[in-house]
Amino acid sequence: MSIVYVIPLFGLIALLFTAIQSAWVTRQDAGNERMQDIAKHIAEGAMAFLKAEYKILTYFVIIAALLLGYMGYSHASSDWTIALAFVIGAVFSATAGFIGMKIATKANVRTAHAARTSLARALKVSFTGGSVMGMGVAGLAVLGLGSLFIILKAYFGAEANTAEMIKTIEVLTGFSLGAESIALFARVGGGIYTKAADVGADLVGKVEAGIPEDDPRNPATIADNVGDNVGDVAGMGADLFGSYVATVLATMVLGVETTSTDNFGGLAPVLLPMFIAGLGIILSIIGTFFVRISESSGLNTSAVQRALNMGNWGSIVLTAIVCYFTVNWILPESMTLRGHEFTRNGVFGAIIVGLVVGTLMSIITEYYTAMGKRPVKSIIRQSSTGHATNIIGGLAVGMESTMLPILVLAGGIYGSYALAGLYGVAIAAAGMMATTAMQLAIDAFGPIADNAGGIAEMSELPKDVREKTDILDAVGNTTAATGKGFAIASAALTALALFAAYVGVVKANGYDLEDAINIYKADVLAGLFVGAMIPFIFSSLAIRAVGEAAMSMVEEVRRQFRTIPGIMDGTGKPEYDKCVAISTEASIKKMMLPGAIALLSPILMGFIFGPEVLGGFLAGATVSGVLMGMFQNNAGGAWDNAKKSFEKGVEINGEIYYKKSEPHKASVTGDTVGDPFKDTSGPSMNILIKLMSIVSLVIAPTLAELHRNTPAVTDAQQEKVKEMVQKAETASKPTVKL
Amino acid sequence: MSIVYVIPLFGLIALLFTAIQSAWVTRQDAGNERMQDIAKHIAEGAMAFLKAEYKILTYFVIIAALLLGYMGYSHASSDWTIALAFVIGAVFSATAGFIGMKIATKANVRTAHAARTSLARALKVSFTGGSVMGMGVAGLAVLGLGSLFIILKAYFGAEANTAEMIKTIEVLTGFSLGAESIALFARVGGGIYTKAADVGADLVGKVEAGIPEDDPRNPATIADNVGDNVGDVAGMGADLFGSYVATVLATMVLGVETTSTDNFGGLAPVLLPMFIAGLGIILSIIGTFFVRISESSGLNTSAVQRALNMGNWGSIVLTAIVCYFTVNWILPESMTLRGHEFTRNGVFGAIIVGLVVGTLMSIITEYYTAMGKRPVKSIIRQSSTGHATNIIGGLAVGMESTMLPILVLAGGIYGSYALAGLYGVAIAAAGMMATTAMQLAIDAFGPIADNAGGIAEMSELPKDVREKTDILDAVGNTTAATGKGFAIASAALTALALFAAYVGVVKANGYDLEDAINIYKADVLAGLFVGAMIPFIFSSLAIRAVGEAAMSMVEEVRRQFRTIPGIMDGTGKPEYDKCVAISTEASIKKMMLPGAIALLSPILMGFIFGPEVLGGFLAGATVSGVLMGMFQNNAGGAWDNAKKSFEKGVEINGEIYYKKSEPHKASVTGDTVGDPFKDTSGPSMNILIKLMSIVSLVIAPTLAELHRNTPAVTDAQQEKVKEMVQKAETASKPTVKL
Repeated sequence: MSIVYVIPLFGLIALLFTAIQSAWVTRQDAGNERMQDIAKHIAEGAMAFLKAEYKILTYFVIIAALLLGYMGYSHASSDWTIALAFVIGAVFSATAGFIGMKIATKANVRTAHAARTSLARALKVSFTGGSVMGMGVAGLAVLGLGSLFIILKAYFGAEANTAEMIKTIEVLTGFSLGAESIALFARVGGGIYTKAADVGADLVGKVEAGIPEDDPRNPATIADNVGDNVGDVAGMGADLFGSYVATVLATMVLGVETTSTDNFGGLAPVLLPMFIAGLGIILSIIGTFFVRISESSGLNTSAVQRALNMGNWGSIVLTAIVCYFTVNWILPESMTLRGHEFTRNGVFGAIIVGLVVGTLMSIITEYYTAMGKRPVKSIIRQSSTGHATNIIGGLAVGMESTMLPILVLAGGIYGSYALAGLYGVAIAAAGMMATTAMQLAIDAFGPIADNAGGIAEMSELPKDVREKTDILDAVGNTTAATGKGFAIASAALTALALFAAYVGVVKANGYDLEDAINIYKADVLAGLFVGAMIPFIFSSLAIRAVGEAAMSMVEEVRRQFRTIPGIMDGTGKPEYDKCVAISTEASIKKMMLPGAIALLSPILMGFIFGPEVLGGFLAGATVSGVLMGMFQNNAGGAWDNAKKSFEKGVEINGEIYYKKSEPHKASVTGDTVGDPFKDTSGPSMNILIKLMSIVSLVIAPTLAELHRNTPAVTDAQQEKVKEMVQKAETASKPTVKL
Repeated sequence: MSIVYVIPLFGLIALLFTAIQSAWVTRQDAGNERMQDIAKHIAEGAMAFLKAEYKILTYFVIIAALLLGYMGYSHASSDWTIALAFVIGAVFSATAGFIGMKIATKANVRTAHAARTSLARALKVSFTGGSVMGMGVAGLAVLGLGSLFIILKAYFGAEANTAEMIKTIEVLTGFSLGAESIALFARVGGGIYTKAADVGADLVGKVEAGIPEDDPRNPATIADNVGDNVGDVAGMGADLFGSYVATVLATMVLGVETTSTDNFGGLAPVLLPMFIAGLGIILSIIGTFFVRISESSGLNTSAVQRALNMGNWGSIVLTAIVCYFTVNWILPESMTLRGHEFTRNGVFGAIIVGLVVGTLMSIITEYYTAMGKRPVKSIIRQSSTGHATNIIGGLAVGMESTMLPILVLAGGIYGSYALAGLYGVAIAAAGMMATTAMQLAIDAFGPIADNAGGIAEMSELPKDVREKTDILDAVGNTTAATGKGFAIASAALTALALFAAYVGVVKANGYDLEDAINIYKADVLAGLFVGAMIPFIFSSLAIRAVGEAAMSMVEEVRRQFRTIPGIMDGTGKPEYDKCVAISTEASIKKMMLPGAIALLSPILMGFIFGPEVLGGFLAGATVSGVLMGMFQNNAGGAWDNAKKSFEKGVEINGEIYYKKSEPHKASVTGDTVGDPFKDTSGPSMNILIKLMSIVSLVIAPTLAELHRNTPAVTDAQQEKVKEMVQKAETASKPTVKL
């Protein structure tokens, strides 16, 4: 059983690696005084935002912890320590965002300086910055989950298949709840911040005043660059931390329910996901060494893309191989979950299904958002007849882009379930998320490069520096889009696993709803409708917040252009801090309501209408959230690249159009609409659906306690019905035994 | 039992009324030669489209009928006559569209002429035209359903609670399938036609050439006016015919399953919905007499709105009163459906719930789309910072507008179920649809008035004529939006009833899935995902079709402006027929794929993955279709009225903006994007979800037969489980007894 102590070690190794890499980045040259001055402005703006955000979130965490503690204290099925786990999860998540922000605001200026030498150096600095964040986030997650599990297990004296073990996992859910709540606020707040600044800066600067992006004369330009750090870096860090924890936890909850005779006291199915996560970090570290290009490769976009792909594929292939041995070592020949028997080969098969689904997701997302492919080309063509047809084209692409991913996802659910039951669905997600560290490194390098470009522009470095950072930025845009495809797929699988776990926990606490979350029942259907509506209202609030904050930004920038003398010829200094303040205030204020809806709606549904209706609600929210996430992410990505295509010139009906042409202006409209889609509401969807599932899982024992006083049928009847349904399930769904 | 013969009589009365009113409209003066010439062009264009459309649909109907006939012939649970019922449904639906189109192309020019006299006369002519269509559609539906029921009942020798009665209803489902299939093609085809012409005409005419709407120099103007007739009239007629039939049928299917001891041989719950439909027509006819304004009321928009509201409310209140007596006369004290006992008072309560839900739906929809209210005003304000923020604003409004309707709908489902079980959900929809004839009259009068305005403009009638038709048109826009809110709500309830009916039919044919459409099962969830994706891909295809056809239209109009000498000074004649041909061809070609997806996807899901997965699929499609319908309809309506607000001038930050200002241009972009949303994809959603449910219902017996060879549990076990679950359901869901 001492194997469990190895898990936090993986986390510590990752954090050690993080520290070494971080020191390396800090040692790099930060360039001339002007560069350092601008970088300082950005870092201070980002820090000011995080401070303001974390201050508000502290109140939230305290209140939520008190409520959780009371719930745990007053209900036998839970424990007050869940409040503690919640706080630790929240603090870890905030730390993950902080680490990312800290390193990104160091790496940006150093990347800009490195780009004065060569593309290879710039890639090395920016990617190392990204990997500090990737390994930091993953390390914190594995360390936190692993050690908390050890401590709680000891505290409750829990062994496999005991009520104490169920309680251990129940309390551990608090850790995930803390992490995912902070993730939601960070993603939404950061997303509003970055897009308000971006849209505001573009609308007045690029469109009205006709000055280039990141021009130092634009008062919103510092806010725009701060936004990259607080939204795309800190927000994403918290997001992936939460996702990672949720996925591993979901598998652990189902693992606890699984009957297993193994060498780890029956805990093998619980330990496996943590082990895969830990090993995934090591394999990701190995993968980072593949990411390099030769000094002689010149200004070559595809070389950079290839290097990142090498790192990504390397980690994934290594994960597949290592999982084979790990599964065979840890798991017994066969296990049983809710009357469904499955084998360890089935579990390995499910992991492969997860990896394949993740890979297909990335490929499809890339197809729908990449330059030169049919979808983006169709938007370009539709830009020739104006703003409206560009928008119609983008919306059509976004809606269409849900088809293949959903079919792949449905196939993945069907396949992983056939291979290893519900545990298979969960472990597929865990497999997909195993290389989170690498994924995040690749994701985070994009905004660092983007920022480096901004700094190069603002410090008026030679044009070739910007060309190099632009190459990195372009690759970053593609990886950002595919990363989102990956995130939403894993979230869907995780949400399903959490949903199944919810059913299990409610059942374990004496209320059997296994036979009752029946979609054809009217109340469950009503819940399904309400749940499916949540992602719509959430998205509405998020994109409206961006629209309104952007309008304030536009008005402020217009005011500065009007009232500050000499601002356009560079003799007057713009008031950057005013714009930073607008973004900060708007994002903090506007993240509250969507966050509250996400947290409170499942609680209200559950306590007012009972566990079945909450089940319908969760299913509706998950399905609609996944679709809205894909729709918004891909439409936004496609619009963005349709606009970017004009930079090199595009051919429509035999004519070549460039920037500033009428079709290009139409494409800018699409890009601006796409901004909040792809960077605010779209990427929040995956957090939203997981958070609502986790909230339900946390309140499940209490809900069950409240409802079991009026059982639908007597215990004896229940036992009999259960038995029969289990028999029926086993008979009708033969496990594919490998 | 002879009471059943009364039902077709209601239909005949309606058709008689239709004939009288139609003759009245024809007798009105059609104005001067130029007006008649233009009207002839429009009528010919509309007829050409219907001919082309019906020709294609004939092939479809023949093939589908052969397949259905074979299925009915080869499976004991069905009968070959289902093919006949299908063909009759299709023919009736096509006739409904034809009647509407025929009267609308007569009423348009006569309304224009009447508007030369007074607003009151113009209202009378246009509304009478609308009511010809409303009564015609409702009359055909009641006549068709009623007489087919009588014939089939006699043919099978069916009595209540026998296998023959189940077969009777099963075959009757074919009628609904025929009606709803034609409805989908007509709605999508007509929707593509009208919006391609509208968007194309606006983009070049209004935006590029700067000539007013409906200017005779615009080559696309005839196509635009034809579009109003084929999309908003013929398409809507087929749509509401299909919806009406589906709703009544869904209640009948559940009625057959209901155990009832009554004075009608146990058939009271089957007869009730047909009776309510029949009485609803009479009450709607009475309601039409309320719709009039005094000759002295002047140019008064609110007087027209009040008159229509009077007619609408009059019919609804009368329906509520008459239903009370009808329910008490026909139904016994109490009935039982699937172990759930409910009373006739409960049934009446459910009807009231339906009427209240419908009313609230209209009010909420009006709030979100009307001028002067917060949502439209927010879009106007966001137009001041450009095209992009206008689009973001509209999308946010559309997404937000799903919240209240969904809560009302969920409440309605919950409430009607609590009052009278699943039968309650179905009868709530039937109550809501009882005044379809009136609803349709109000809906159809809008496009007639719109067309009248077009004819007035093209024949260069005095400006005050156009002012009068504009008032009618403006009111028509509001009623169109609220009509859509109504349609989607009734569709949701109908789809649920059909879904429940599907479960019942599968069960009745020996495969018990009652305990198995459990959302937490992985395969059902996979089905839920795939189903929820269908409305996205369907919408994508529909709006893309409009975008692409509009682009062809733009290119054609640009070509004519370039190559026809003297076109702009009125000496050269535009080639109207070229534009008509473009719209006709595009719409016929592009309606195929979405139609095929709607028809084939449930068949594929059912036969490949079985009845449970199909259940999940249907639930997903229904929920997502309802949300996408509301989102698109309301966003489109709000954009439209935001644009219209500029005509009278709007104040933004202290400045007044009019037409041709920059904010107005941004609002035109929103309106253009909203066009396919609110007139093509949005209103197709309600047909889509019902059609997929009906397809499933039709294949249900065959599916059950195929799957019952491998029963999950033995019959004895099944019986026992069923009994227990029924007991559990009855115990846990106490019926509210009034």
